[in-house]
Amino acid sequence: MPKYKVTYFESAGRAELTRLALCVAKQPFEDVRLKPEEWALQKESTPQGMLPILEVDEHIICQSGAMVRYIAREYGLYGNGNTENTEVDVILETTEDFVKDLIKFFYEKDPDKKTEAIKNFFDTTLPKFVAIYYEILCNNNGGNGWMVGSTVTIADLYVFSIFDGIKSFYGDDAVKAYTGNEKLEAHCKRVTEIPEIKNWLQRRPKE
Amino acid sequence: MPKYKVTYFESAGRAELTRLALCVAKQPFEDVRLKPEEWALQKESTPQGMLPILEVDEHIICQSGAMVRYIAREYGLYGNGNTENTEVDVILETTEDFVKDLIKFFYEKDPDKKTEAIKNFFDTTLPKFVAIYYEILCNNNGGNGWMVGSTVTIADLYVFSIFDGIKSFYGDDAVKAYTGNEKLEAHCKRVTEIPEIKNWLQRRPKE
Repeated sequence: MPKYKVTYFESAGRAELTRLALCVAKQPFEDVRLKPEEWALQKESTPQGMLPILEVDEHIICQSGAMVRYIAREYGLYGNGNTENTEVDVILETTEDFVKDLIKFFYEKDPDKKTEAIKNFFDTTLPKFVAIYYEILCNNNGGNGWMVGSTVTIADLYVFSIFDGIKSFYGDDAVKAYTGNEKLEAHCKRVTEIPEIKNWLQRRPKE
Repeated sequence: MPKYKVTYFESAGRAELTRLALCVAKQPFEDVRLKPEEWALQKESTPQGMLPILEVDEHIICQSGAMVRYIAREYGLYGNGNTENTEVDVILETTEDFVKDLIKFFYEKDPDKKTEAIKNFFDTTLPKFVAIYYEILCNNNGGNGWMVGSTVTIADLYVFSIFDGIKSFYGDDAVKAYTGNEKLEAHCKRVTEIPEIKNWLQRRPKE
């Protein structure tokens, strides 16, 4: 069994999807969370001077999208066959677009612009992506199963993870567009009820 | 043989990697390029209201990263085995980061800020990514072959395509950091000498 080690900062962020995938794959991993001063000492020795990284025994993989696809291919979390693989990729890429819009206000320093960006996110961006996810979910098994095919994939984990992150920052009320949607809520519940995910959500460090 | 159709605007942009991959895969495709007024009429009928899209017979795939991975899996342009697949993913994701930095000045409207952003791109961003690509290339076959493994992959095509785009906007002089680098230049030449790529570069619409 390979030895896995995920290194990131002290948060969920761009490492969480790989952590969730390793949990569902039932692969123990070392969960390293660096303080800024520790990272400063290690930055030079990483492939692109960036976190997260995934170590598989002695081999280092950077880029979160590459890390999680590696695990997905290794443990059957990418759907079956090229059509399902591609449906998973569509959801990963869509969620990257969502994250790109989401983080706009995280880095905004002007308070007025920040307020406006947050309002825009909740009024426009969030409902737009909720509608996309809803349609994708409902097109598969009437919306009563997983996002792609008949088993859980990294697509389900990524969608769950992003909304989980938004809720932890802004509370359940902040994502009414999502939490008012029965099919998506039930999908989210299905993810949290995977025993390894349930266990992870209880034991992961609080933010 | 499936019928392929790539739909995008009248430019290389986010569709070009899929077009290049289809060429290398020796798959004829319909190359649809919409004018803004034509797109306005079709936008509502596309999966996420976005271009590019790839149609495989009647099936529509959106998201450029998903489109090109579909073609790569179908025609052996993704490397062999999970380790090489992942090396390809690392390069695709790295190039997405590069593009993200690259397009910053495309959308900047303030002329002073635009000049500053362009300067920053050529002084900092470009050399940084050239160094990353150089290291990746040299770590495989001494830098005398492809980016990953022993055959051409979508990683080679993406790196080529981005620099090809920069050169077409700013001329060869603009990418001295790249064109002064013998290994990367030779790699670029290897891509352009693939007969199907050579043919495509001659017949594709001028921008």
